Amino acid sequence: MPASVRIREVGPRDGFQNEPKAIATADKVRLIELLGGTGLRRIEVTSFVRPDLVPQLADAEQVLAAARLPAGVAVSVLVPNQRGLERALRQRSRFHAVNGFVSASETHNRQNSGRSVGDSLAGLERTFARGRAETLRCEGVIATAFGCPYEGRVPIERVLAIGRRLVVMGASEVAFGDTTGMANPLQVTELFAAARAALPGVELTAHFHNTRGQGLANVLAALQCGVASFESSFGELGGCPVPVGATGNIATEDLVSMLHEMRIETGIDLGALIEAARAAQQTIGRRLGSHLLSAGPVRWSAELA
Amino acid sequence: MPASVRIREVGPRDGFQNEPKAIATADKVRLIELLGGTGLRRIEVTSFVRPDLVPQLADAEQVLAAARLPAGVAVSVLVPNQRGLERALRQRSRFHAVNGFVSASETHNRQNSGRSVGDSLAGLERTFARGRAETLRCEGVIATAFGCPYEGRVPIERVLAIGRRLVVMGASEVAFGDTTGMANPLQVTELFAAARAALPGVELTAHFHNTRGQGLANVLAALQCGVASFESSFGELGGCPVPVGATGNIATEDLVSMLHEMRIETGIDLGALIEAARAAQQTIGRRLGSHLLSAGPVRWSAELA
Repeated sequence: MPASVRIREVGPRDGFQNEPKAIATADKVRLIELLGGTGLRRIEVTSFVRPDLVPQLADAEQVLAAARLPAGVAVSVLVPNQRGLERALRQRSRFHAVNGFVSASETHNRQNSGRSVGDSLAGLERTFARGRAETLRCEGVIATAFGCPYEGRVPIERVLAIGRRLVVMGASEVAFGDTTGMANPLQVTELFAAARAALPGVELTAHFHNTRGQGLANVLAALQCGVASFESSFGELGGCPVPVGATGNIATEDLVSMLHEMRIETGIDLGALIEAARAAQQTIGRRLGSHLLSAGPVRWSAELA
Repeated sequence: MPASVRIREVGPRDGFQNEPKAIATADKVRLIELLGGTGLRRIEVTSFVRPDLVPQLADAEQVLAAARLPAGVAVSVLVPNQRGLERALRQRSRFHAVNGFVSASETHNRQNSGRSVGDSLAGLERTFARGRAETLRCEGVIATAFGCPYEGRVPIERVLAIGRRLVVMGASEVAFGDTTGMANPLQVTELFAAARAALPGVELTAHFHNTRGQGLANVLAALQCGVASFESSFGELGGCPVPVGATGNIATEDLVSMLHEMRIETGIDLGALIEAARAAQQTIGRRLGSHLLSAGPVRWSAELA
């Protein structure tokens, strides 16, 4: 197992975009800056999607312009296409990486972006070429990598073939997304073992959801395959909470708590992270799914004395 | 990892006892009988505690007398002391096993039962001797085996010393309880590896809580140590949900879902189990913490066709 892991906080993008009630730009900026003070070294701050499709993130420019983050934080933005990238590039100095995504399943990709997987990959190729020309780090995310709600099982070979394409077009990192929470630890082991062999030298990232309660069990299985990069969302915000009551992304603070208890370093101050999640809960105005927000961190003997 | 595991459903005891609103005896019996129809082979149906201490289980005699369960189901009751066992023994033919508990931490044991660990063990010795004379299977539960909210870390040696005492006094099975959800997968691995060496030939059972979201990650770690016996609660009922908002026991349906997806057999019909949890949710009248109750089981390609 790795001695330390890298965590990308995706709540300001994946979390906020799923909130039905508008969050004020100033609140987003304040929460992002709180996250920036926790020791997190990777934060996805927004998405340059079409504002009419995702009104909640219509303030992408303003958020990117306003959020002040420590020098050590790698800032990434999601870009669904080249038009989104061009919007972001007007503030080139404000971010370090772009995140482009495609689904492993044809049906999910069509439902999500109205295009075939092949067309999405062709678009990503242009986007990543443009991004690389701007010396941006390119990250490819493969959604429904562990199963599709429309198609069911997704063959590992198909996932890895997409991963290879992403690497060929310049992705330094490939993230495997359990978009609707269908992954189990056995499958995680199989996929990451195969991915390590198929994509040598590429940073492999796990993006799990806690839809069926297995989020952290899947993290454990991934760690055991040597995966040292994870994406998660503070407060357990976001991540396609469908049907109602289902949870989405694993909570960053739940992830960090488990890692620290297992003596795996993250560089993150768990107390500060819980405070950021608590601030998000207050801003959003409903009880979030995070376990640590309710239970607090484990307190061991030295702390109880 | 084991090819199949045994699950003891503890919701009718550990779940119901924590509900603040009285549940009608007929409702309890109906829910227990629903559980009996799921393929579960071990059900803890009630506890013969003092009715003034736990009014919710004051109907232990009536529940035990009324619940009709299939012949293959091993019925157990919790007995806090010999007086409780004598109450249960008036219906000797209605159950197969007794469950007696002690905390690994001195402070928790005193808070929970007003006695020292030594006094609890002496009492359990008499209770188990009486139970064995009645050919009952005796199960010892060690609470706070993974940490104590008052004392913090509990040394593995202390936990194993108690385990050995329980075995010497006739326990066929020793359960390790993460009473307030402090366990992490590294610790689970360390404890169960040591327990297997210290208690050869004894059935070792893991009883995890999901307080900090690590319940199923801890199950995975235990499986990897060869643990093939688990306790859980349908709906995610019960298990000391303190502070408010914290979850308790892992949900049986979440556990079964993960195991089945990992191709580990349980003998349980997941659909029937979810229906039992749904019935509990309706009876109790609030949304329960179970993930499967919200998200439903994973549906793979064959089922989507």
